[in-house]
Amino acid sequence: MMKFEYYNPTRLIFGVGSLEKLGEVASKYGKKALLVIGRGSVKKAGIFDRALEVLKKAGVEVVEFSGVESNPRLSTVLRGVKVLKENKCDMVIGLGGGSVIDASKAIAAIALYEGNPRDMFIIAGRTPKPPEKALPIIAVPTLAATGSEMNGTAVITLDDGEIPIKTPMKSGAIYPTVAIVDPELTVTVPKNYTAYGIADIIAHVTESYFNGVGGTPIQDRFAEGVVITVLEYGPRAVENGRDLEARTQIHWASIVALNGWVNVGTYAQFPVHAIEHTLSALYDVPHGAGLAVLNPAWMKFAARYNPQKFAQFAQRVFGVSSEGRDPLEVALEGINRFEEFLRSIGCPTRLSELGIGEITEEMLYDWAEKTLEVRRDNQGRLPGIPPLSKEDIVEVLRLAL
Amino acid sequence: MMKFEYYNPTRLIFGVGSLEKLGEVASKYGKKALLVIGRGSVKKAGIFDRALEVLKKAGVEVVEFSGVESNPRLSTVLRGVKVLKENKCDMVIGLGGGSVIDASKAIAAIALYEGNPRDMFIIAGRTPKPPEKALPIIAVPTLAATGSEMNGTAVITLDDGEIPIKTPMKSGAIYPTVAIVDPELTVTVPKNYTAYGIADIIAHVTESYFNGVGGTPIQDRFAEGVVITVLEYGPRAVENGRDLEARTQIHWASIVALNGWVNVGTYAQFPVHAIEHTLSALYDVPHGAGLAVLNPAWMKFAARYNPQKFAQFAQRVFGVSSEGRDPLEVALEGINRFEEFLRSIGCPTRLSELGIGEITEEMLYDWAEKTLEVRRDNQGRLPGIPPLSKEDIVEVLRLAL
Repeated sequence: MMKFEYYNPTRLIFGVGSLEKLGEVASKYGKKALLVIGRGSVKKAGIFDRALEVLKKAGVEVVEFSGVESNPRLSTVLRGVKVLKENKCDMVIGLGGGSVIDASKAIAAIALYEGNPRDMFIIAGRTPKPPEKALPIIAVPTLAATGSEMNGTAVITLDDGEIPIKTPMKSGAIYPTVAIVDPELTVTVPKNYTAYGIADIIAHVTESYFNGVGGTPIQDRFAEGVVITVLEYGPRAVENGRDLEARTQIHWASIVALNGWVNVGTYAQFPVHAIEHTLSALYDVPHGAGLAVLNPAWMKFAARYNPQKFAQFAQRVFGVSSEGRDPLEVALEGINRFEEFLRSIGCPTRLSELGIGEITEEMLYDWAEKTLEVRRDNQGRLPGIPPLSKEDIVEVLRLAL
Repeated sequence: MMKFEYYNPTRLIFGVGSLEKLGEVASKYGKKALLVIGRGSVKKAGIFDRALEVLKKAGVEVVEFSGVESNPRLSTVLRGVKVLKENKCDMVIGLGGGSVIDASKAIAAIALYEGNPRDMFIIAGRTPKPPEKALPIIAVPTLAATGSEMNGTAVITLDDGEIPIKTPMKSGAIYPTVAIVDPELTVTVPKNYTAYGIADIIAHVTESYFNGVGGTPIQDRFAEGVVITVLEYGPRAVENGRDLEARTQIHWASIVALNGWVNVGTYAQFPVHAIEHTLSALYDVPHGAGLAVLNPAWMKFAARYNPQKFAQFAQRVFGVSSEGRDPLEVALEGINRFEEFLRSIGCPTRLSELGIGEITEEMLYDWAEKTLEVRRDNQGRLPGIPPLSKEDIVEVLRLAL
């Protein structure tokens, strides 16, 4: 039966035009901000200058830290911490996609962390030491996808070992103090990244829907509501990036998909994310693109173990008729409809479309092993429903060939 | 298009057995607590003694303040403030139904308020001065209904004038610091109050669903999800009060129905609540019973102005077929199904069932006037969709005869 704690102290300022409030908001937390950005798209789009202007007007001095890559690396984060400390910044503002916001959260926490930053992160076989405090964080997303602007997770690629490991840190201390979500900032996101974002949003709710403890009927309905809304507005946002209504609904969906409202109390595992993180870490695959490939493949595998829940999804989300039919058949029809949807908005759904080059059977085993190195239960399996052995992960990957 | 701010800092501890954590939680906020209770039901049920025990064990001294009535009065709240000040309490713990929790929130705020407490409250024709700070509040609900344990509203009956006025105060300062929600505490709630709670939960989401700005598809889905879940588990909770699974789902529904997750960004008006508050203030009608009578009556009136939205509700929540039918016909079938549901769980659905005695046409006009004295727009109408003139309110009341 449901038993959980929920706490999300992020103040959310949502809606077209919200960027104008950044200066006033930031001025409450100090006089100097580290402004973290990616590799230049916010400058090209003119968003950086607009942010600079409102911050300046509010008397907030800005120290720029640019160059955060997608799949942000610990080495980059540590460079950010150095710049922050050298300049004695009072807060961190993340202006960009999920990578920039995750990097900003990590910088704000590491700035006040006494131990080895690597210890904050979840790695199989040891207990993480998440940060207990962080500088104020203001998240200003320019992409609707990760929902990082209103949660306490930051996913970073640890690049200080022999092979890179992409893994989350989770802490109550790294919820952004304020999230300023202005869907207008997303209108210049190209079609492909808009589509990857949509795949990401859907994956967030399907992971908790299918990999949670069950007995959470309200959360189920909320998850279905998010997916149904994304199925309606997603294609509009891809088709016409300047459709502000569509951008608004998609951005809102991305936030509720991962701020706890859908998955609280489900104790969800994220096996599809775990496998995808391996691909992102090794080949710099865009996270949403990797999820678009892996999520339907994982569903086809997992539906055999949990046909009723997958049939429920097919029925409620895609309106698949279940009358007198075998639940697995209903389930698979829903999964096919989902895969067709992803293709229709331009997402890849096969591993061969990810630009990895030729894929051998050996590589599948290697990816499965690497995934289990980061995350495994005490029987050596990737947690989820069902828990996945190495062979199972390879089977999921085969279904994506 | 959606534009809003959201901030809900309440830490929620949810699930059967959570009461055990009250001591540990309270000890973080001081050494002495004002423990606010109602008129004795928590003592009869043994809940008071259990709370006392865990508080004592954690070293928290308790000052009891009992006797909060349903539809709590300002005079009662002020007596509570006096006891709190005399005993120098560090925090307020509300252990009871929505009335007790609302009174606790008001006590915690008035204890630190410099002006006239009456000014905090919303009354038509003047600008309220909501409190900017409050003592720590710990809410421990023993009834699933108002959702007060995780929101920033307290509804109090101002009884210092000629006629009592029941009206809310709203402030970011009165979100409970912690809500400890243990559905097991609700198993002794009698059938009728369980049913009234269910009518209250549904009214919370239907008010924002039908009286919001629209263009909020995710909030619509969330609202429908809450109602569908309540339709399933509500009758179970009424039938067998010891059905912990049903009590758990209903309690969870009551929280999400009014913690902002369903109505954020809708800028919802609450006309049915406003009319009900008049009945509660004048006749001490249980709030949920009043809503069970007024909500279907209001819906029948409002559906004419907004048939598409009511038809959507009928279709998605009650599975009413809409094919080739007039939306208003579909809408009214849904409303009838809703009214039948309320009757099936033992709720009154007619004014004559509220124990008011003989109801005259004059009384209907009097109630409409009194409602508008508390809440009206600048054209003198009760805000909502549609806004209600005095005649309209009388018409709604007639539909409940």
